[in-house]
Amino acid sequence: MKKLFVWMSILLISTGISAQEALWGGSTIISPQINADSSVTFRLAAPNAGKVEITGDFLPRQTIETAMGEMEIPGVAALNKGANGVWEFTSASLAPELYNYNFLVDGLKITDPSNVYQIRDVSSIFNIFIIPGEQADLYKVNNVSHGSVTRRWYNSPALGMDRRMTIYTPPGYENSNQDYPVLYLLHGMGGDEEAWIALGRTAQIMDNLIAEGKAKPMIVVMTNGNAIQEAAPGESSLGFAQQPTMQLPKTMEGSFETAFPDVVDFIESNYRVKKNKADRAISGLSMGGFHSLNISREYPDLFDYVGLFSAAITPFEQTDSPIYKNADEKLKVQFEKNPKLYWIAIGKDDFLYNANVDYRKKLDANGYKYVYFENEEGHIWKNWRIYLSKFAPMIFQE
Amino acid sequence: MKKLFVWMSILLISTGISAQEALWGGSTIISPQINADSSVTFRLAAPNAGKVEITGDFLPRQTIETAMGEMEIPGVAALNKGANGVWEFTSASLAPELYNYNFLVDGLKITDPSNVYQIRDVSSIFNIFIIPGEQADLYKVNNVSHGSVTRRWYNSPALGMDRRMTIYTPPGYENSNQDYPVLYLLHGMGGDEEAWIALGRTAQIMDNLIAEGKAKPMIVVMTNGNAIQEAAPGESSLGFAQQPTMQLPKTMEGSFETAFPDVVDFIESNYRVKKNKADRAISGLSMGGFHSLNISREYPDLFDYVGLFSAAITPFEQTDSPIYKNADEKLKVQFEKNPKLYWIAIGKDDFLYNANVDYRKKLDANGYKYVYFENEEGHIWKNWRIYLSKFAPMIFQE
Repeated sequence: MKKLFVWMSILLISTGISAQEALWGGSTIISPQINADSSVTFRLAAPNAGKVEITGDFLPRQTIETAMGEMEIPGVAALNKGANGVWEFTSASLAPELYNYNFLVDGLKITDPSNVYQIRDVSSIFNIFIIPGEQADLYKVNNVSHGSVTRRWYNSPALGMDRRMTIYTPPGYENSNQDYPVLYLLHGMGGDEEAWIALGRTAQIMDNLIAEGKAKPMIVVMTNGNAIQEAAPGESSLGFAQQPTMQLPKTMEGSFETAFPDVVDFIESNYRVKKNKADRAISGLSMGGFHSLNISREYPDLFDYVGLFSAAITPFEQTDSPIYKNADEKLKVQFEKNPKLYWIAIGKDDFLYNANVDYRKKLDANGYKYVYFENEEGHIWKNWRIYLSKFAPMIFQE
Repeated sequence: MKKLFVWMSILLISTGISAQEALWGGSTIISPQINADSSVTFRLAAPNAGKVEITGDFLPRQTIETAMGEMEIPGVAALNKGANGVWEFTSASLAPELYNYNFLVDGLKITDPSNVYQIRDVSSIFNIFIIPGEQADLYKVNNVSHGSVTRRWYNSPALGMDRRMTIYTPPGYENSNQDYPVLYLLHGMGGDEEAWIALGRTAQIMDNLIAEGKAKPMIVVMTNGNAIQEAAPGESSLGFAQQPTMQLPKTMEGSFETAFPDVVDFIESNYRVKKNKADRAISGLSMGGFHSLNISREYPDLFDYVGLFSAAITPFEQTDSPIYKNADEKLKVQFEKNPKLYWIAIGKDDFLYNANVDYRKKLDANGYKYVYFENEEGHIWKNWRIYLSKFAPMIFQE
């Protein structure tokens, strides 16, 4: 065995090109290091830096004054420089959660070169780590049966293009004759068909909830809600020249809602699914909550389960789309048809909180039944992962 | 429309939490900027940095002296600091290719915060960009029909675990009754089931070759060749604590080859595939070339097409695996059965060049037929993408 390792070592160091860059670039610094008390130590080898800080959602947020009033921004903590040029910071003990962070090196925001686990959120890339336990165990890959995740293209006649979606099929889908219910899960502004599977940990949450018997095996369809896009940045013929942005046209002006039946038609023509209202759910976060509200209202026979996660509820009469016309009449029709669950979830600190209060008042005034869930914090992926974890077990149970 | 944009802007700036971090963190710096003459301008806003450099495979390599002799390492170029604190460098005109790079800020290797397009290679993450044209057009997402890419788990009785693979199915697979041929495509040391789809641009290469009529529609199976692993780093129950490494046990000691029939059995039980020798190909890079050599030799009735890309050809009598026993006799049997194509490809600068020369001498001495392709440079993904682009059109054509 010794000879083998010698040979492997030669393979690793005997050339100066790409495959070996990986080794050379790889650091022996351990960061993040999750300690026994659930504190986390972060390290960065930067002997020439004047100042190294860390920012992330595991740090207490700071309140700053702005022209628009008080604003909360992510916390920042300083790393201390060791004699070896390695900077270090150890957090307080952290509650179970999937957290994110970046380093700030002399003010420049970078990812941690010792941690390959990174996620893109719109145009930012940050590192992630998980403190296990409780809710956070749903976000881990556990020793359970795993569903399949497919990136697949479909044709949308209404939008006149081929478009990309991400589809989760539950464990056993490929080896059964069963028909499955479908959850359509929509992203927020700046997101795309990669958002829920990456930031939302959808595959892990569904695998774990299904393994625990808490959620029914279901197909989860994560489509692209930006009607201007064929696919996520980098995945369409626009190539790499275009960087992701929140400033996309055709996001909240009716195009996506109008074209949504194309998505349902594709799924119901291509997957073994149950094709009843009772076997379809739609939910989304922020803009995706707005889309879910509009789509379920526009097509009142499609969805028996509706989930509005931190929904961007707002009057949109200023756009010409028929989707937003006669909204109250359409909503009446939707609720006369008694959807099995109309679920509204939002955090107390969400900037959309009041818009959701107003919307619930309207539902209350009309006697429309819904279930409301409120928790702490605001417009963050932490909450959307929680909402998916709570919504999925409530659907398709009858 | 104006009102809508005002509302959207408020949505974007009115809170200080995660979704908005993306916006705040997002930079207005354009980098990389591909110029009309195919030069590329790189920029980094780092007003406090003392020195900013760039390294990448688009720069001429440097030769350095080491204890082991001369070694080539990636080139480095200095960025110049502008009055605004933005550093800039413009390359020479570049030939069409998919290139990679990192910045070095006061010696610290980082990714470009203005470019979300990044790929992991073992434990390193670098940015990528494409200079279009010629061969590089195969690496782009073009306006052609797209296949599907699925991450799926299979059970390997021989390895005693559930394992993850990446499967490309060609455009139209889901909507036909046709049976398809299968290419098994194996990664190198330090790689996993994500390597070929990310670094290798397999989906783009196959989509484009199929659209041009150059390759037959085929299924491409990218499995994990590290017999110790269930899945790529971060995708198994080992979680995020473990960072990727090239120093894995059970990579080149027979376990993977012994267990390979589990992969074929799974694919042939779960996909609409042709189950003849003439409809199976196996190829791989470096360690994956070694695996392809051994697997095709061990199971001489399985594969009519074998591709050794920069194969790590070496005598492995020092391991106990029966896979490496009686290798010459097994090779004789394999060639007596006349495989349709035994393709060996390597770059002139590859550190495995001589091992491949020796192997070809052995084939020649025995009159075993193979096709040899040699090109410039060495053990790099640039070459492996070229080899896949050349190998795929040669298989399943009869």
